[in-house]
Amino acid sequence: MSDLAKEMSVVNAGSSVSVENMAHWNDFYNEVPAPLNYAEVISGVRKFIQDAKQECARVAVVTSGGTMVPLEQLTVRFVDNFSSGTRGAASTEYFLDEGYKVVFLNRQKSIQPYARHIPSVLDVLELDRETNVKVKSCHASKIQSVLESYEKYKSSCFAITYESLGDYLWLLKGISTELNSIGASGMLYLAAAVSDFYIPKNDMPEHKIQSDRRPEITFSLVPKMLRPLVKEWAPEAYIISFKLETDPNILLQKAEKALKLYQHNMVIANMLTTRKKTVTAVERTGEVVKIDNHDEDKEIESLIVNLVKEKHSKYIQELSAKSPFP
Amino acid sequence: MSDLAKEMSVVNAGSSVSVENMAHWNDFYNEVPAPLNYAEVISGVRKFIQDAKQECARVAVVTSGGTMVPLEQLTVRFVDNFSSGTRGAASTEYFLDEGYKVVFLNRQKSIQPYARHIPSVLDVLELDRETNVKVKSCHASKIQSVLESYEKYKSSCFAITYESLGDYLWLLKGISTELNSIGASGMLYLAAAVSDFYIPKNDMPEHKIQSDRRPEITFSLVPKMLRPLVKEWAPEAYIISFKLETDPNILLQKAEKALKLYQHNMVIANMLTTRKKTVTAVERTGEVVKIDNHDEDKEIESLIVNLVKEKHSKYIQELSAKSPFP
Repeated sequence: MSDLAKEMSVVNAGSSVSVENMAHWNDFYNEVPAPLNYAEVISGVRKFIQDAKQECARVAVVTSGGTMVPLEQLTVRFVDNFSSGTRGAASTEYFLDEGYKVVFLNRQKSIQPYARHIPSVLDVLELDRETNVKVKSCHASKIQSVLESYEKYKSSCFAITYESLGDYLWLLKGISTELNSIGASGMLYLAAAVSDFYIPKNDMPEHKIQSDRRPEITFSLVPKMLRPLVKEWAPEAYIISFKLETDPNILLQKAEKALKLYQHNMVIANMLTTRKKTVTAVERTGEVVKIDNHDEDKEIESLIVNLVKEKHSKYIQELSAKSPFP
Repeated sequence: MSDLAKEMSVVNAGSSVSVENMAHWNDFYNEVPAPLNYAEVISGVRKFIQDAKQECARVAVVTSGGTMVPLEQLTVRFVDNFSSGTRGAASTEYFLDEGYKVVFLNRQKSIQPYARHIPSVLDVLELDRETNVKVKSCHASKIQSVLESYEKYKSSCFAITYESLGDYLWLLKGISTELNSIGASGMLYLAAAVSDFYIPKNDMPEHKIQSDRRPEITFSLVPKMLRPLVKEWAPEAYIISFKLETDPNILLQKAEKALKLYQHNMVIANMLTTRKKTVTAVERTGEVVKIDNHDEDKEIESLIVNLVKEKHSKYIQELSAKSPFP
């Protein structure tokens, strides 16, 4: 039994997880191919992070949206996680406001920063009498202020899209490894809703599942990537994961268990039905901060970003105090 | 054994379908609740179709996009069908060009008619020197022609969105029942990618499935709604279903089997990988038309709509010839 395997058995004693059930994280990468444009994307991220380093800026990697898990090799059907991407998109705007550079790793067609404030393009444009295209006057001032923010910040945000679970996990590994080059100034803000399950290629039918019988599908567990993320890919970054549950009785307990198991910095725990009104931030140190948003004109993401920025500042100070070369 | 059950056993002799596996279509509607705004939507459809009748216009009901099948009652995860909605959105434009009124039943956030030709709103707008919002000159003429079509046709298209399989099937039933009031002038063009599987509420866990073990999920078969659609809801309409497969060896055989089983008018058969270049239209009469699109500036949907309009005209003529009151 490997050290990892022993550790997991201990932490999960009494639960039904056995190490036989869970592949090592490396096996996943050996089995699932990287996205085709992987090298190009990561080289772009490297340049973006190096530029941020020169400017002494902090970098937040914000992940956003659900992940697609194919049920067939020639994929007609897939399992998805409910997530429109609002939390990631809104948080990205507040991080930019706070002076962060943002790597925005988002699901294709999820909600986008800034664009989310503008209705469909056909609803805001019209033809005038000379059939010139113009912006409807009732939308003009809103669009003006959105465009101002967008123009101000667009060079501070590096957006990357993914669709499948495999692409997401490859990009997460590559980006977080690059992020480690700026040490404690880096933050991972893992708001994406990532599948816990997948079907390995060898277990997957090649063709569309036929509908002449009731299909039974057995999923494999996705290795918990927070472990190598914290230990190997970005050990110096400030790492925040999100925990979404529907059963309030297990939420905080699951957040605390994750911090104990993976040793990252914070879990933001939220319930499916109340996630826009209230979240609870749990730190590895044991500190628990409940954030309630009572102001209808405010988004809860502005409060979350305020808190994590403050915690990140503290983390950077503590780490630089420990460093022999201040 | 009911007549329906007997019939299905005969047609499926030798396959693994047994009638015990497949619920009667009515059971589905008894179990799955209608969307909350159902009565309001159907009353809007009724008015739209009555107006079309007064104008002697034909009406095409175009369905578009995938359907979401929840895996949990408080839904975090769901199974989805791959479909961006391009075929339905493009076909809607060509039907409108051909003088049809269109009921566009589409998945939330799927590709939209006309809007699909315009990039993201933030990419086409800019601030001028006085910080007024304007359309970038490089996009102006394209947007102008799209807006002209949109303005011309928007009152001829009644758009309805759905998300879940249950909502889709409720709306399909309600809309097609209304469509029957214009007899042979109605067409159903069923381009949506509808799930064959679902999990009945009683078989579904209430809360998010936990990731401490490998989940095994057994799906139930969705009753084949083409049967009541043809026999009960819209027996006078011209009905076209789509068949998407990944295995070329079974495609045409499955199309022919569906026509024999459900007795509708046409199946448009297509392969996942070549669906934008080639489709095969199979009629109940046995006639087979292969449509290949060799022109890169043309969309295959324009050719499909041309063909189905012609077949629909023939169908209307034949039916009026049979009618005792010409």
